[in-house]
Amino acid sequence: MSDQACYVGIDIGGTTIKAGVVSADGTVLTNTIYPVCLDCGRDEGLIHLYAIIDRIIAESRSRERIAGIGLAAPGTMDIPAGVIFHPFNLPGWDNLPIVQLVSERFGLPAVLQNDANAAAMGEAWLGRARGVDSVMFWTLGTGIGGGIVLNGRVWEGAHSHAAECGHMIIQQEGGPRSEFGIHGSLELYAGARGLLRRCREALASGARSTLRDREAGGETITPIIIADEAKQGDELADRLIMETARYLAIGTVNIMHILNPAMVLFGGAMTFDQHGSELGRRFLAKVKEEVKARAFPIPAERTIIDYAVLGGDAGFIGAAACAMKAFS
Amino acid sequence: MSDQACYVGIDIGGTTIKAGVVSADGTVLTNTIYPVCLDCGRDEGLIHLYAIIDRIIAESRSRERIAGIGLAAPGTMDIPAGVIFHPFNLPGWDNLPIVQLVSERFGLPAVLQNDANAAAMGEAWLGRARGVDSVMFWTLGTGIGGGIVLNGRVWEGAHSHAAECGHMIIQQEGGPRSEFGIHGSLELYAGARGLLRRCREALASGARSTLRDREAGGETITPIIIADEAKQGDELADRLIMETARYLAIGTVNIMHILNPAMVLFGGAMTFDQHGSELGRRFLAKVKEEVKARAFPIPAERTIIDYAVLGGDAGFIGAAACAMKAFS
Repeated sequence: MSDQACYVGIDIGGTTIKAGVVSADGTVLTNTIYPVCLDCGRDEGLIHLYAIIDRIIAESRSRERIAGIGLAAPGTMDIPAGVIFHPFNLPGWDNLPIVQLVSERFGLPAVLQNDANAAAMGEAWLGRARGVDSVMFWTLGTGIGGGIVLNGRVWEGAHSHAAECGHMIIQQEGGPRSEFGIHGSLELYAGARGLLRRCREALASGARSTLRDREAGGETITPIIIADEAKQGDELADRLIMETARYLAIGTVNIMHILNPAMVLFGGAMTFDQHGSELGRRFLAKVKEEVKARAFPIPAERTIIDYAVLGGDAGFIGAAACAMKAFS
Repeated sequence: MSDQACYVGIDIGGTTIKAGVVSADGTVLTNTIYPVCLDCGRDEGLIHLYAIIDRIIAESRSRERIAGIGLAAPGTMDIPAGVIFHPFNLPGWDNLPIVQLVSERFGLPAVLQNDANAAAMGEAWLGRARGVDSVMFWTLGTGIGGGIVLNGRVWEGAHSHAAECGHMIIQQEGGPRSEFGIHGSLELYAGARGLLRRCREALASGARSTLRDREAGGETITPIIIADEAKQGDELADRLIMETARYLAIGTVNIMHILNPAMVLFGGAMTFDQHGSELGRRFLAKVKEEVKARAFPIPAERTIIDYAVLGGDAGFIGAAACAMKAFS
C-alpha cells in the first residue's frame, strides 16, 4: 500500500454532492455521488455533509494518510476565511464558516474553494490542462462561470471574486438586460437562458424550425432540445448554437487580451460535446474560428482551445488538489 | 555609502528614453530623459542606447553595485527570450535580441519587459500600489494599454501578450470598427482617437460647443483641447470626457469580473488629472460611480480605484524592479 498523502475532495452542487479521495500522485482512490439534502437547513445539512465525508474516507481505506479536506461550493464566499456567504441552493447555509466546522469535526485541516475554480484546478491537476502553466476554464450551464489557474494555483482574486467571466460585459449599449439591471453580459447571450431567449425571439419573428413543432407538441424548449434538433439538421437550432459559440469566442478573446493564458477550456453541462458529437466538434471549431478573427496573431496561433475532459469529476478532484496545495 | 544592489531601468518610448538607477531599497539614485534617435536604425540606435546606459551608470556612481539591467519597450515582444518583434516607432529594431546584446555589451544580466507592464510594476514597487498584492494599471494615451502585477510580479501571459486590455471587446455588435477590422474594442471608444471620433460625430450632428469655435479658428482638436474646454465649462467637451470615464469603467468592471484585483490604477498621457484638476476628480468619480453600478457588491466596495502617482517615471522604475526580481 502506498504511503502517499491523500486528500478528500467534496464538490457541493445544486442537486448532488460529489465526494472523492485522491492521493498526492493523482490517483483517485474512490468517489461517489450523493444527493444534496435540499430542505435540510443548516444543522441537518451539515450532519449530512459530515456523514458523506465519513463514508468516503471509510471507502478510501486511507484514513491515516488523509492530510486535508477540500470543499468546493457554489455562490459567493470568502475563500481565505473559509466562509460561504449566500449559497442560493443551500438554504440556511448563509455566512457558514464551513472550513472551521469541517476542520473541527474531522480533526483535519480544510480549505474552501468556489466550485468553478475547483473544476479548473481539477483539469489543471489531472485533466486536459495537466502541466499547463495558465488556464482559463469556462463552465457552461444555466449561468456561465469560470475558473483561472495560474502557475498551479487557483487565482481567487483579492476578494474571492475572480473568474466570474460570464458577467463580462460584451455589449455595453443596447444589449439584453438582466433582472439585476446589468446590460449586455456574456451570460445574457450565451448562458442557457440567453440561448432560450434568442430561440424565443427567432421563433416569434417567424423563423422556420422543427423547434416550433416540438413546442406545439407540448414540449418546453431546453438547451438539450435545441442541441437535439441541431443534430437532426434544423437550421435555426444550429444557428442558435453557433451564435453561442461566437459569443463565447468574444469572451475568450477578452480573456486572451487580459490574461493571455496558455489554454482555454470549455466544460459544464451545456457543452455540446457530451458524446464527442459532430455538433460538439463544429461548436469548438466555430469558437476557434471566431477567436482567430479577433485575437492578436501570436496568441491566436498558440492558445490551446479545447473541451475539458474530467466532466463532473473535475470539482472534487480540484477541491482535493486545493487541499494538497495548502497542506502538503 | 550603501552596499545595496542597484538596478538600471531603461524605458524606451516613442520620443524619449528615460533611464535611471534604483537601489534595492527603492531609492532612485539618478534618472534622466534622452531623446529617442528616431531615424538611427538598428546599429546606430543601439550605440545610442549603450551610451545612455553608460552615462546613467556613471551618473549613479554605483557601477560596482549594479546587479542587472531592465529594459522596457513598446510593441510586441517575446519577454522571456528578450526579443523585440516589431516596435513601430523604432525602425530597424525588428526581431532584435536586445537582452542578449545589452547583456553582452555591459557584462550584466538583463531583462526585457513591455512598457505598460513595466509601468505597472513601477507603481507596485514605489508608487500608488506599493504593498498591494494585485493591481491592474491602465495607460491612457493614443492607445489604451495595461499592465498587471500579481503577487509582486508582472503577469506577462503565456505568450507575452497579457494586459492588452484596450483591445477588450465591449460592443460585439454595431460598435466602431478599427483599421484591422476589429469591432467595438474599448480603445475604439476611449482611446485618443475614439475620443476625437466621438467629438467629430457630435459636432457633425450639430451639438453646440466652444470646440466648434476653436476648430473654426483653425485649431486641430486634440484630447488636451477637449479637456481645456471641459474645464472652461463646455457641455459637449465635458460629456465626451465623462463618456470616456464610462467606457473605462466598463473595461474596469470586466477586469474585476475576470481578475478581481485589489487595485485599479489610471495613468498615461491622457489622464485628465495631470495637475490634480477638478475635471480629473470628476473623471475618477465618474469611473467609480459607473463601476459601482455594475460590479458585484464586495469588489464594488473594496476595489481601490485611483490615479497612478509616478507619472513618466513608472516605466524606468518598473524596468529596474523587473531586473531586481530576476537577479536578486
